Amino acid sequence: MTLRVSIVVGNPKPKSRTLKVAETLVEKLFDEGSYDVEVIDLADHAQEIFAWPSEKMAALNASVAASDVVVFASPTYKATYTGLLKAFLDRYPANGLAGVTAIPVLTGADLSHSMGPTVNLAPLLVELGASVPGRGFYFVAGQMDHLDEIVSAAAAEYAANLRRLSNVAAHLGTGIPTLV
Amino acid sequence: MTLRVSIVVGNPKPKSRTLKVAETLVEKLFDEGSYDVEVIDLADHAQEIFAWPSEKMAALNASVAASDVVVFASPTYKATYTGLLKAFLDRYPANGLAGVTAIPVLTGADLSHSMGPTVNLAPLLVELGASVPGRGFYFVAGQMDHLDEIVSAAAAEYAANLRRLSNVAAHLGTGIPTLV
Amino acid sequence: MTLRVSIVVGNPKPKSRTLKVAETLVEKLFDEGSYDVEVIDLADHAQEIFAWPSEKMAALNASVAASDVVVFASPTYKATYTGLLKAFLDRYPANGLAGVTAIPVLTGADLSHSMGPTVNLAPLLVELGASVPGRGFYFVAGQMDHLDEIVSAAAAEYAANLRRLSNVAAHLGTGIPTLV
Amino acid sequence: MTLRVSIVVGNPKPKSRTLKVAETLVEKLFDEGSYDVEVIDLADHAQEIFAWPSEKMAALNASVAASDVVVFASPTYKATYTGLLKAFLDRYPANGLAGVTAIPVLTGADLSHSMGPTVNLAPLLVELGASVPGRGFYFVAGQMDHLDEIVSAAAAEYAANLRRLSNVAAHLGTGIPTLV
Repeated sequence: MTLRVSIVVGNPKPKSRTLKVAETLVEKLFDEGSYDVEVIDLADHAQEIFAWPSEKMAALNASVAASDVVVFASPTYKATYTGLLKAFLDRYPANGLAGVTAIPVLTGADLSHSMGPTVNLAPLLVELGASVPGRGFYFVAGQMDHLDEIVSAAAAEYAANLRRLSNVAAHLGTGIPTLV
Repeated sequence: MTLRVSIVVGNPKPKSRTLKVAETLVEKLFDEGSYDVEVIDLADHAQEIFAWPSEKMAALNASVAASDVVVFASPTYKATYTGLLKAFLDRYPANGLAGVTAIPVLTGADLSHSMGPTVNLAPLLVELGASVPGRGFYFVAGQMDHLDEIVSAAAAEYAANLRRLSNVAAHLGTGIPTLV
Repeated sequence: MTLRVSIVVGNPKPKSRTLKVAETLVEKLFDEGSYDVEVIDLADHAQEIFAWPSEKMAALNASVAASDVVVFASPTYKATYTGLLKAFLDRYPANGLAGVTAIPVLTGADLSHSMGPTVNLAPLLVELGASVPGRGFYFVAGQMDHLDEIVSAAAAEYAANLRRLSNVAAHLGTGIPTLV
Repeated sequence: MTLRVSIVVGNPKPKSRTLKVAETLVEKLFDEGSYDVEVIDLADHAQEIFAWPSEKMAALNASVAASDVVVFASPTYKATYTGLLKAFLDRYPANGLAGVTAIPVLTGADLSHSMGPTVNLAPLLVELGASVPGRGFYFVAGQMDHLDEIVSAAAAEYAANLRRLSNVAAHLGTGIPTLV
């Protein structure tokens, strides 16, 4: 079965480096042809993000929520995710990302905000019901020349975590009710 | 293969309700006989927790780090985990819980600190390299009469999350280097 | 000298209860006639909040930054401030609220997110250089009938904190350079 | 009136650089002779920190709570304050630091944990009722050669914040009940 992947980018400027980082992470995690990916560059939807109701936004929200894996990527503004990304997530009801494996990615100018993905973005995604397989990923924007190796190392860590979690899943009790 | 489970309890008082909550969660998640469990009640080790070096503490740390699943459970003190639990975790080097699936549990007097497991304890465990399959679990101490049903619901959610994560693991690319 | 006060409300719906809570807090803190207050209901500016540049938004940002006291009030969405409020704050450069005394206010449906103002909104305002005199203020929306007494108690605590901070200010060393 | 200042250091090793940083900050903020300072190096009390009751610990807790200003300083362990510092703070009842002006200080190896004082230590102190006049202070341990200038800049920022807060205090309404 083809894996369904989404990338949601919270940069108010389109086609950002942040988007590139997220795409690279997906390419490192999964083999070409084994997944479908939808990229939602929120810069393209800023004018409609506070419209309510909005068929277009509802469709985007639904598509992301139905994904197996979502990379939520944002530049670091004020030590955390952007208002644009938060505005997109605010459209969900409680538990709106249940069932989603989410990877929080923040890009920033230097190391000083490197706690952001783990202490700010990950708890937000988890609040919505998503599961985050390990640390959030922080990428220093000045390291684009080393994008490939840095993202490969992050992907290897996520893969190791996912395999360990999978091992635990295989030992779950037989009596646990199947949610979904 | 038998799953290796640990329970680490950060209550300065031994044999607490917090310990009972953690044990119940483990019982709900896994079938009897399918796992070994070690319970570390840190109240029994408070006098040695700042000793350095300490063979006994080192053995406890190593045993927990070698577990497949660890429930870290603490009463809520000042809106977060106890100093006793933190002192135990402080003994690890960076990334000392890599490979561990961790479940953060806080018990508290009322709902007002229910964000604690997700915003405080989970990021701490993740900082050490552990993976947390979803939300932290907050248990209102006055609900001991409903322990069974509340913990069952939490276990069902962790199980659902773990199965979803396992599905993602099954789709990981063939070229990702195997860490550890 | 007349105190300059601003209220910034991050509710996507205008004229919200959140706005009412913030106004009441200001009325409790300061005597009528001793201050000027500007209310910025961000619901009125959602369509322009991502526009760049925007003279109107720049004027609002500047007015807030020039205030002595700002109440930043938002409903709780996903356990934290709204994307709308964050989008407004994202328009500031680093340290853009330096010199401002900020009071973080979140309203929510029940106690379960009551840590939000202190762990999420206050650090965001502080990151921008503002000073927060104590806890963030969380108001349970169902308590509007008790608005007056609940807000009075919060105001009394902020006042006590401000007087204590003022006492410390009076003891500052003579050699400290005056930043402005 | 002489200002009462305390320094509480959460480093399990005594006489640490963290202590030196905290002392320097106090010296920069206040003129010699204008304050009394008590230094509590928790390394000296680790063996008694979990004892309950303990006259000695109770006396230390009381002395800190009666201070006008307290610098809480800790090395960064696992991206946040140490378990030793938390264990000391855990001994307080709710609101046990009400009335205290607290300055959170963390020292760390590099910039990657620089959000720690603001997102972890400050909210903990605020939860206990203390007021923090601005950002937490993060000091990179390798910068001891520049201790004087770095701490001077931080002191200048705290002083500016305190003066601004003092100005707000001067405008407080006449009808606000005086808490103590």
